[in-house]
Amino acid sequence: MSQARAYAAFAADKPLAPWTFERREPRPDDVVIDIAYCGICHSDVHTVRAEWGEIQYPQVVGHEIAGRVVAVGKKVKKFKAGDLAAVGCMVDSCGKCANCKRGLQQHCVAGATFTYNSKEKDGSQTQGGYSTRIVVTERFVLKVKKGLPLERVAPLLCAGITTYSPLKRHGAKKGTRVGVLGLGGLGHMAVKIAAAMGAKVTVLSGSESKRADAKRLGASAFLLTKDAARMQAAASSLDLIIDTVSGAHDVNAMLGLLDVGGTLVMVGAAPEPHAIGSFPLVLGRRAVEGSLIGGIPETQEMLDFCAKKGVLADVEVIAAKDVNEAYERMLKSDVRYRFSIDASTI
Amino acid sequence: MSQARAYAAFAADKPLAPWTFERREPRPDDVVIDIAYCGICHSDVHTVRAEWGEIQYPQVVGHEIAGRVVAVGKKVKKFKAGDLAAVGCMVDSCGKCANCKRGLQQHCVAGATFTYNSKEKDGSQTQGGYSTRIVVTERFVLKVKKGLPLERVAPLLCAGITTYSPLKRHGAKKGTRVGVLGLGGLGHMAVKIAAAMGAKVTVLSGSESKRADAKRLGASAFLLTKDAARMQAAASSLDLIIDTVSGAHDVNAMLGLLDVGGTLVMVGAAPEPHAIGSFPLVLGRRAVEGSLIGGIPETQEMLDFCAKKGVLADVEVIAAKDVNEAYERMLKSDVRYRFSIDASTI
Repeated sequence: MSQARAYAAFAADKPLAPWTFERREPRPDDVVIDIAYCGICHSDVHTVRAEWGEIQYPQVVGHEIAGRVVAVGKKVKKFKAGDLAAVGCMVDSCGKCANCKRGLQQHCVAGATFTYNSKEKDGSQTQGGYSTRIVVTERFVLKVKKGLPLERVAPLLCAGITTYSPLKRHGAKKGTRVGVLGLGGLGHMAVKIAAAMGAKVTVLSGSESKRADAKRLGASAFLLTKDAARMQAAASSLDLIIDTVSGAHDVNAMLGLLDVGGTLVMVGAAPEPHAIGSFPLVLGRRAVEGSLIGGIPETQEMLDFCAKKGVLADVEVIAAKDVNEAYERMLKSDVRYRFSIDASTI
Repeated sequence: MSQARAYAAFAADKPLAPWTFERREPRPDDVVIDIAYCGICHSDVHTVRAEWGEIQYPQVVGHEIAGRVVAVGKKVKKFKAGDLAAVGCMVDSCGKCANCKRGLQQHCVAGATFTYNSKEKDGSQTQGGYSTRIVVTERFVLKVKKGLPLERVAPLLCAGITTYSPLKRHGAKKGTRVGVLGLGGLGHMAVKIAAAMGAKVTVLSGSESKRADAKRLGASAFLLTKDAARMQAAASSLDLIIDTVSGAHDVNAMLGLLDVGGTLVMVGAAPEPHAIGSFPLVLGRRAVEGSLIGGIPETQEMLDFCAKKGVLADVEVIAAKDVNEAYERMLKSDVRYRFSIDASTI
């Protein structure tokens, strides 16, 4: 066992605070990683505040983890001490079901083991990345290319793969007309990745203040969604929309922007159902699809793609003591575009 | 000009009644068809009752038309007098837009000319298939194999293509697990066509009385949608659902039946939006898609497929004078599974 320092949640209505806990002794297939940075995702806030159901406290969240390997179990083949490594939303799965065998561990029939607020196969509680160390089976550890800035790599592990996966699946490439709805943590990654794939990207946003950033991030157009005339003029002009908005919003208005056969992919999950008309779907042969992060092979593919294309998250690095304030700022969209916790400050 | 007899609507709240009107002189590209049978589609009722907006009366509806060619314009190449022929939901389109060029005339950017309640390029009103004759440009006339029973071919022109198109697009074949929601005019064609493609078909219905028919039509399983225990047991067991229900229904419950990456295709259009949760979409990477009939090349492909596989609609042939009663019976689902009007009785 080794001690890890962390910032943990102790109750739904209390701020995160320092905590020290034990990480397990590495098993033969384990990789021990000293965490350098961990991104802050909206899921972290939903979880610690018990908005997605009751949780066990103390709870360490964080699933956008980048760091350095410090030790490996004796059967580990792909990693050695000194390697850069990353961990995303999952740390294990059954490995035997049809979905696992297809590399879709996030859809493991037995239920994947998530990086926090989940149970390991031995029944122990998982604890996430707002900590100094993590121990993970090598099957769920990703390789990171040497020389990359880890504070900007960390958010790729959730925000990056969540947007890469549907872009890849729908064949985004030169000429594809991609809309990105919402320019936050996920949206800014969607813009960068789609642009790196060669797509023509339009940012769809309710906030004029995002126009300049949209262009800077790689979008070739910006559409203010509350401008009815421009929305009308843009009807049927997109092939694919990555919808990163997790709250209630007018999905039908977005569907109207899709050309025949186009798809709107939801990567956020709103608590209430969306009112979706059958007419915009049927008359334009359009689809609304959900997408959940990505499997381990695709996550590695995404990291390699981003390394090759120079795609990194735009981050604001914070000290761990500022995590509670960062939550409040993120909820007000006051971050461009992801907070990255410097684990050396924990 | 030639005279045609018809059963026409004269007002939203009046029964259809006999009417005589003129069909145009055939142009060089026109095919003149003496109609043998015309299927009755729900769209016909919505249209004559002005439920989809105001219409021009008198109005002759009907877009499931099968008959025999009696004359052709001098430039017509694909048809000659005596051939069997069919006409579906469209009689013209611009022919120049990207969608027309891809054979998706139903999505013509300029708007397709529909078989009834629509405007020809010359501004004249289209009148549909509850009539003895129709004149249509050869580009929108389909070939029917000799010897087929036309009363059972007619419904393929809407109910057949509407279900064939999404089954084909999603690659239904041996091993594909297809659910068909609703066993009416469209549903019974979906079952027959999916089974003919080799798929394993499950009928999803709220009515136990459809169980025997489901099997007879080619389904290998029947799932009573109000049986919560069996619905739960069938979670994630289907690859594709053809949803033929046009009224309000619980789409989320159906999404739960889809495996990872599965799609529910809506071919009916409910007047009110559906409440669709993002969780069933996101957690299972599922999609809800709309589909609108099919283009002309695909309609011909469907007719050829059905001829080869022996797929025909189950019909109840009626005399034209019984059309109003047939409407009432259809609205009560009291038909197995499509009414086909014998045009010789008009």
